[in-house]
Amino acid sequence: MSMLGALLGRPLANREFNERQIGAFEGVPAMGLDGLGSSAYGPEAALSILIPLGAAGASYIGYVMAPILALLAILYISYRQTIRAYPSNGGAYTVSKENLGVNGSLLAAAALMVDYVLNVAVGISAGVAALVSAIPTLHAYTLQLCLAILAFVTVINLRGTLDAGRLFALPTYIFVGCFLLLLALGCYDVLSTAGHPTAVVAPPAPAQVTEAVGFWILLRAFSSGCTAMTGVEAVSNGVSAFREPKVKYGHRTLGAIVLILALLLAGISYLVHAYGITAMDQTRDGYQSVLSQLASAVVGRNWFYYLALASALAVLALSANTSFTDFPRMCRIVAEDGFFPRSFAVVGRRLVFSIGIIYLAVAAGLLLIAFDGITDRLIPLFAVGAFLTFTMSQTGMVIHWYRELRRSQENRAHNQVSLTINAVGAATTGLASLIIIATKFIEGAWITLLVIPAAIVLLKSIRHYYDDAARQLRDDKPLALDHIKPPIILIVAASWNKLTDKALAFALSISPDVYAIHLKAMRGPDRKENEKAFIEQWQKHVEVPAREARLKPPKLLMHEAQYRRLDVPLLAAVRELQEHDRDRVIAVMIPEVVKQGWWQYLLHTHRARRIRAALLRAGGPRLVLMNVPWHLTDTDMLDTIEQELRSEADHVKEEMRLAWQQPSSVPGANEQHR
Amino acid sequence: MSMLGALLGRPLANREFNERQIGAFEGVPAMGLDGLGSSAYGPEAALSILIPLGAAGASYIGYVMAPILALLAILYISYRQTIRAYPSNGGAYTVSKENLGVNGSLLAAAALMVDYVLNVAVGISAGVAALVSAIPTLHAYTLQLCLAILAFVTVINLRGTLDAGRLFALPTYIFVGCFLLLLALGCYDVLSTAGHPTAVVAPPAPAQVTEAVGFWILLRAFSSGCTAMTGVEAVSNGVSAFREPKVKYGHRTLGAIVLILALLLAGISYLVHAYGITAMDQTRDGYQSVLSQLASAVVGRNWFYYLALASALAVLALSANTSFTDFPRMCRIVAEDGFFPRSFAVVGRRLVFSIGIIYLAVAAGLLLIAFDGITDRLIPLFAVGAFLTFTMSQTGMVIHWYRELRRSQENRAHNQVSLTINAVGAATTGLASLIIIATKFIEGAWITLLVIPAAIVLLKSIRHYYDDAARQLRDDKPLALDHIKPPIILIVAASWNKLTDKALAFALSISPDVYAIHLKAMRGPDRKENEKAFIEQWQKHVEVPAREARLKPPKLLMHEAQYRRLDVPLLAAVRELQEHDRDRVIAVMIPEVVKQGWWQYLLHTHRARRIRAALLRAGGPRLVLMNVPWHLTDTDMLDTIEQELRSEADHVKEEMRLAWQQPSSVPGANEQHR
Repeated sequence: MSMLGALLGRPLANREFNERQIGAFEGVPAMGLDGLGSSAYGPEAALSILIPLGAAGASYIGYVMAPILALLAILYISYRQTIRAYPSNGGAYTVSKENLGVNGSLLAAAALMVDYVLNVAVGISAGVAALVSAIPTLHAYTLQLCLAILAFVTVINLRGTLDAGRLFALPTYIFVGCFLLLLALGCYDVLSTAGHPTAVVAPPAPAQVTEAVGFWILLRAFSSGCTAMTGVEAVSNGVSAFREPKVKYGHRTLGAIVLILALLLAGISYLVHAYGITAMDQTRDGYQSVLSQLASAVVGRNWFYYLALASALAVLALSANTSFTDFPRMCRIVAEDGFFPRSFAVVGRRLVFSIGIIYLAVAAGLLLIAFDGITDRLIPLFAVGAFLTFTMSQTGMVIHWYRELRRSQENRAHNQVSLTINAVGAATTGLASLIIIATKFIEGAWITLLVIPAAIVLLKSIRHYYDDAARQLRDDKPLALDHIKPPIILIVAASWNKLTDKALAFALSISPDVYAIHLKAMRGPDRKENEKAFIEQWQKHVEVPAREARLKPPKLLMHEAQYRRLDVPLLAAVRELQEHDRDRVIAVMIPEVVKQGWWQYLLHTHRARRIRAALLRAGGPRLVLMNVPWHLTDTDMLDTIEQELRSEADHVKEEMRLAWQQPSSVPGANEQHR
Repeated sequence: MSMLGALLGRPLANREFNERQIGAFEGVPAMGLDGLGSSAYGPEAALSILIPLGAAGASYIGYVMAPILALLAILYISYRQTIRAYPSNGGAYTVSKENLGVNGSLLAAAALMVDYVLNVAVGISAGVAALVSAIPTLHAYTLQLCLAILAFVTVINLRGTLDAGRLFALPTYIFVGCFLLLLALGCYDVLSTAGHPTAVVAPPAPAQVTEAVGFWILLRAFSSGCTAMTGVEAVSNGVSAFREPKVKYGHRTLGAIVLILALLLAGISYLVHAYGITAMDQTRDGYQSVLSQLASAVVGRNWFYYLALASALAVLALSANTSFTDFPRMCRIVAEDGFFPRSFAVVGRRLVFSIGIIYLAVAAGLLLIAFDGITDRLIPLFAVGAFLTFTMSQTGMVIHWYRELRRSQENRAHNQVSLTINAVGAATTGLASLIIIATKFIEGAWITLLVIPAAIVLLKSIRHYYDDAARQLRDDKPLALDHIKPPIILIVAASWNKLTDKALAFALSISPDVYAIHLKAMRGPDRKENEKAFIEQWQKHVEVPAREARLKPPKLLMHEAQYRRLDVPLLAAVRELQEHDRDRVIAVMIPEVVKQGWWQYLLHTHRARRIRAALLRAGGPRLVLMNVPWHLTDTDMLDTIEQELRSEADHVKEEMRLAWQQPSSVPGANEQHR
């Protein structure tokens, strides 16, 4: 327990809830790492598609990035509105539920769930891939590194979102500072050399031209570059994590993330074009990422280069944190609606939804293990989910404003503008989704399109189960107490000991009808004598005292189990008693030695547990189980204390004797001895 | 359950016990495979030590084998006596316990336990080593093959000793037949050529002479050859497996095993000498075992050669079966004496001691995995245990006969002869033990000498634990029923439903003092209303009917848990109630939905289980736990039946109507409708 305490921190009380909410400072690391990390691979992904264009690739990046930035602006404005309209929780699930109905909300939830799990696996493995390409000796430990980072992020998030936000603020703000400075330096160079800067370290020569520019290649570059936008929805899904006023902190966090992301994307695109940087084939030796080429070109290979690249790597590896902030919060809402297991809505030790965090870690860990830490192939899968969610959320907002307009005349102009913005957002993100699905269908987007419907079916069947259970348990009638009778009690009596004694005394205190069932030994030379002795003991130690206390003596059943198991004959006895007394409850009493250490699990048979399981499963509705526990004390320990006590006792006695002989200096002490 | 049935067979009833006992035909495969397998590696082990003598090695094998055969004869006679003297179980543990005291018996038990585990690992890996040297492509799968054979032998033994004995009879008797025929053919060749037979396939040239013959090398060859004798004690340890008269079948089995073993050892030694066969270095290419050289020399490389070698390989790989027959039976006796966990004495599904079989398999499996399937280094360890056991058992028998002689005058001559035989046996096996320890100390025998005392300490501390537990539970006093009072009942009430209803009704049937504890929700918009609704429901549905039934209404405790856990506040409530009423039992009632499928484990929180665990651990001695189960029925299924019923009902009604209209052809039917 104390190890858990050291790892996760002390349990937090409900009254500490408000102090544990986050502001914008922690909000950017907690929810923005996915978005900011995207800046590291978004431009790279777009440029990779442009490799066949050779040196011309760098010139076309502007055509690809401009619509992405425009889309980002639209998303920013519309998510601002979403946060304001749904200040308690504006996630795609909630927005869809309110405006598009249950099926729409489940589609959004399923898409987001798949997306968050993929984001964790892809983010961590991208960070580790960058790390092992920088330090090749680590290559053999790719999977171990991935799992270590996953475990680290999981533990930090189990400590709470505030802890994660504070701890990850350092790499986040170093990254932001370094790259904004780097881009500023680069832009200054470009402007001061009239668009012809000299690279400190020249980027490698571009690849051979193998393809002419065309619409399809630009479309594919655009859809790859769109991965830079995943993570923008994060703030709206996690509004509940902010302190009051939530809308203010949500807006601030969203604004900060989008502004930084936009600056990074625009700056990178501009400098890539100016320095003539192209993407390199990752599978070739001497591979350098676009960010590494850019930093080398602007500042050379000095300490600043290494700091910037290391912070980029950290942000990439920690981009999983966004999922850890949002996934459990979304699952909680879905669970409260009954579409996901209830335990996802249970507030954990540190006031976060621990089950969601653990589930996310396990699912992502399995993905990492299955793909051996290299999840490149999963990237096409995961932009689909993000853009599907964007579209759902925007469409939901369009309907929301439409309803507002029909409902009241207030703020008409404002609502019309909002509707227009969200309509544009829905149309563009919808179009982008179609482009992504079309361009990435063969690469794996089809898998997402299979998984999401399956997830929806699962969510619906969970709800069905809960509804069914609730219907069976619903109770509109008052307690029926017309013919309550004491239960018939059946005690499992292995041998005659204090445990059996305790169980019998308790049984006689609650019912006049007590049976004890004793399993006969299978064979052995002393079998007959043992049985006789047991029966005699029973008569002397149970029947006689019961009669003396004017109680109906318990009846003893001696059973010879043909299959050496007590659960089946016990069940048969229960059935027989139930048959005999149709309106009484049968209570089976199982005396049990409480196991306090692992060695006791090895030394005691687990009959009590097996009997419990069998009776619960097949004992029918009129059965109650009772556990009469017995604690074995560690007498060695007690003996030691007893000995120590004895050795001290003489001293104490002597001291007392001396004290009593002397006239007391404490007032009233003499009265005591009168 | 049916998969388990297919694998292990149906559960056997106690009355089938006698039919499941074995005779000599199954006894030889069940207990003799270790001994017979020894003939394959005993001479080889001795000859390996003689490799430095070159061609002379073959001539000295007689000097080594003669004392081994003499020892075998002594062991045979003395174990015959042991079986007769202890017909129920003559294992070294029992003999030592009766004659040498507790410490001696524990030494024997520990030595045997270590030995049996080692025998499984060494036997299987020796068999697999022979197989992969014959088919080198299997080499990469050494460990997998070992574990597969282990799993196979384990499952067969879990089906019962009779099944194992019957199934393994085939390879055993093929092996015996093949080799006895082979040796007969060889001896005929030798005799018909006046001691100068011509090998069909000449054995490879002996190694270079690097050492002169000396006493120490012969002693080492002797102690290596002694491994051929392990397994002779097996019959005495497993007498309980035989059908009545046990002594007869025990004697027959022991006789058959020793006779076959002696013939094989003598024949192999004689022919090795005659054909000039020497051992080859196993690590070199082109290695051939002694048996393979011998078979090639006598019959050449025909089908008979392959059959003989394959059967030898099977016997080697299955030699683990001896441990599987004896280990669980020995553990049972040790467990019944309280020195080993009780579960080892529980008779399993197929009337064998399943826990012992599984434990043996797991321990040997871990050894195989740790040594990657190559356990050569373990061989020196395991002859020590066997000879230690021989010596213990023989010494015990000496004391047995000595006591018999002092006790009575009957059978004096017979007992004196017996004493002499066992004394010779004890002296020779003791001497052999010393030789083995001395010659193999550095190779690893010292490990056994460390492990055995550690095992003895473990056995003693298990007994200590059981004694302590028994002392605490011992109860010599009759049931104390002077002031029994009904318990105070505390019900965990999550919400108002049929489950709570059932629990309350049951509680009111056994005690007038009932409390219900309800955990308030942490936060949320509807919190206050929900609480108010709950309290109103309580008043209307519980308090009113209780008063109407003239019962004391249960009290409701609304608790706000700062740490969102019910176990701690519940425990606090229990303590408070215990403090308040010092002589009453507190019964905590936990209503619980019974989980019937794995999916339910995912969909329900495990609060009931956690509360149970916490209360059992820390609730003190005056606590009783009650489980009130509720079974959710699969209403989908019920709905289907309901629908089918409805669709059938119309038909049936129609048929009935028609039947009633017609004058009945069934006598008495008209009376029914009068």
